Amino acid sequence: MKDRQSLGLRVERGELKVLDQTRLPHEETWIRVSHSDVMVDAIKRLAVRGAPLIGVAAALSLARDAERGAPLATLEANAMTLRAARPTAVNLMHAIDRLLPWLGEPGRLVTEAEAIFDEDVLLCERMANEGAKLIQDGDGVLTHCNTGGLATVGVGTALGAIRRAHEQGKRIHVYVDETRPLLQGARLTTWELDKLRIPFTLLCDNMAGVLMRAGRVQSCFVGCDRVAKNGDVANKIGTYGVAVLARHHKIPFYVVGPRTTYDAATATGTDIPIESRDGSEVRSTHGLASAPAFNPAFDVTPNELITRIIWGEN
Amino acid sequence: MKDRQSLGLRVERGELKVLDQTRLPHEETWIRVSHSDVMVDAIKRLAVRGAPLIGVAAALSLARDAERGAPLATLEANAMTLRAARPTAVNLMHAIDRLLPWLGEPGRLVTEAEAIFDEDVLLCERMANEGAKLIQDGDGVLTHCNTGGLATVGVGTALGAIRRAHEQGKRIHVYVDETRPLLQGARLTTWELDKLRIPFTLLCDNMAGVLMRAGRVQSCFVGCDRVAKNGDVANKIGTYGVAVLARHHKIPFYVVGPRTTYDAATATGTDIPIESRDGSEVRSTHGLASAPAFNPAFDVTPNELITRIIWGEN
Repeated sequence: MKDRQSLGLRVERGELKVLDQTRLPHEETWIRVSHSDVMVDAIKRLAVRGAPLIGVAAALSLARDAERGAPLATLEANAMTLRAARPTAVNLMHAIDRLLPWLGEPGRLVTEAEAIFDEDVLLCERMANEGAKLIQDGDGVLTHCNTGGLATVGVGTALGAIRRAHEQGKRIHVYVDETRPLLQGARLTTWELDKLRIPFTLLCDNMAGVLMRAGRVQSCFVGCDRVAKNGDVANKIGTYGVAVLARHHKIPFYVVGPRTTYDAATATGTDIPIESRDGSEVRSTHGLASAPAFNPAFDVTPNELITRIIWGEN
Repeated sequence: MKDRQSLGLRVERGELKVLDQTRLPHEETWIRVSHSDVMVDAIKRLAVRGAPLIGVAAALSLARDAERGAPLATLEANAMTLRAARPTAVNLMHAIDRLLPWLGEPGRLVTEAEAIFDEDVLLCERMANEGAKLIQDGDGVLTHCNTGGLATVGVGTALGAIRRAHEQGKRIHVYVDETRPLLQGARLTTWELDKLRIPFTLLCDNMAGVLMRAGRVQSCFVGCDRVAKNGDVANKIGTYGVAVLARHHKIPFYVVGPRTTYDAATATGTDIPIESRDGSEVRSTHGLASAPAFNPAFDVTPNELITRIIWGEN
């Protein structure tokens, strides 16, 4: 594999490494992916997360197994295990399915995985350019979860559009939902915005309504993990609540995601499998240890609440 | 002062003690209030919280200063410091204002403070009975923050109504918003419900919309820190978002608060002072230490989103 690099993934001298996103912002620890089992574990525990990044990382992991001479049966098993590592984001399934025909041809498998990487970079650029057009000078933009360089191998999806608007010289302010329970906003989005020197304010998820009512939010930009055929969108838990608030306050609500998140095989949002994670993530160390807890990792926003989906195709 | 006891406050042999609610649910530590300065500190750092409890606790603290022979000038100074300890909940101001005429008569001051305690117990009973009528067998009830025995010196406000419905034999399930940033739901409401053996599920604030959309929530019950003349309500940050979600899903949204939270001197919600607390509460230990953070402790829900305010007067 040729060297490639993004904010959270590196191919260097044939080695594949991923940044452990669970340790950000306090530590930048890179995980050497010696085998797809390491990648599966990294995806399951959210060391690697973000729908586009998961797809690219899984593809490169499988390609690396092939490059190291793994037999066909092993590659087939690894492909299935990778494909099932997280159930909601469809990019992962699309990336693996695209590689399946080439499991017997390691060279072609590597080329195809590299193409998935390069295409994600390109798609991010297109989405950033398209999305930035919807952000005006002086806007307050609210975002949820992390959708930047850490969630993709390019500039990001929703956060890529925000970044591009900033690069165009528009004076914007980003309102960052902390995104409970795993705090991707507080840990990852703030870390990215700080590096990029884009002005931002962190808030608890339950504070977004106050900002909207006060007129401080001109648009909402979020990513997506799967888009159903009817345009319903699965994304990080809490997205639906932001969409309802945006509708109530007549604020545009934009979803940004590459075409790899579109799933023609899923008719509507209710058909999207939603991962339930362990209640301990919600209880954390502060709450009552015995409390029963609800912990869906994603929710579904119906298409009628979405102003526009930005695919980067225009 | 005669002995009195509630879940979070005790008068025992002339001593006034308050439960340190910042240490719940892990530790039950009682603070001995030797002087009103101790109470002011406890209120500011939320060891004592909940609008009705703050009012009662401040009144008893001032009465105890008088009982110990504090001179009039000291009592006047303590009254003003207590009154200013937290700006949003109006019960505190009402309780202190009620005592001001009696600062020169320690006996009467004590009697009046004791009456404030006893009235809160009675008002809680009335609100519980009135609110419970609005909860049906089989209902899922969503609540925010903590409004139970810890927030009052009686059975509580919103949580009192929920408790009463349970005591009436109605099979209910309580959905508990964790209530970021200080997690009063995750730390305090779960602790109370667990003791009362009322079935509940803890959730992150951003998960409420999913439950409502799934038809699992039949009503929302919240408390209040101040009700303006026009019926707008200030309550714990996040309440407004719940109200918007409830409206979107056509679910009744009830506010429960004693008449001591009604403030005829405040015309509308925009006139209610909202306490801004330190951003470190939002950043917590997980987020980026340098992140600028928004941290209003309360928000305002306009009267048009409120199905009914339950005063306990019917």
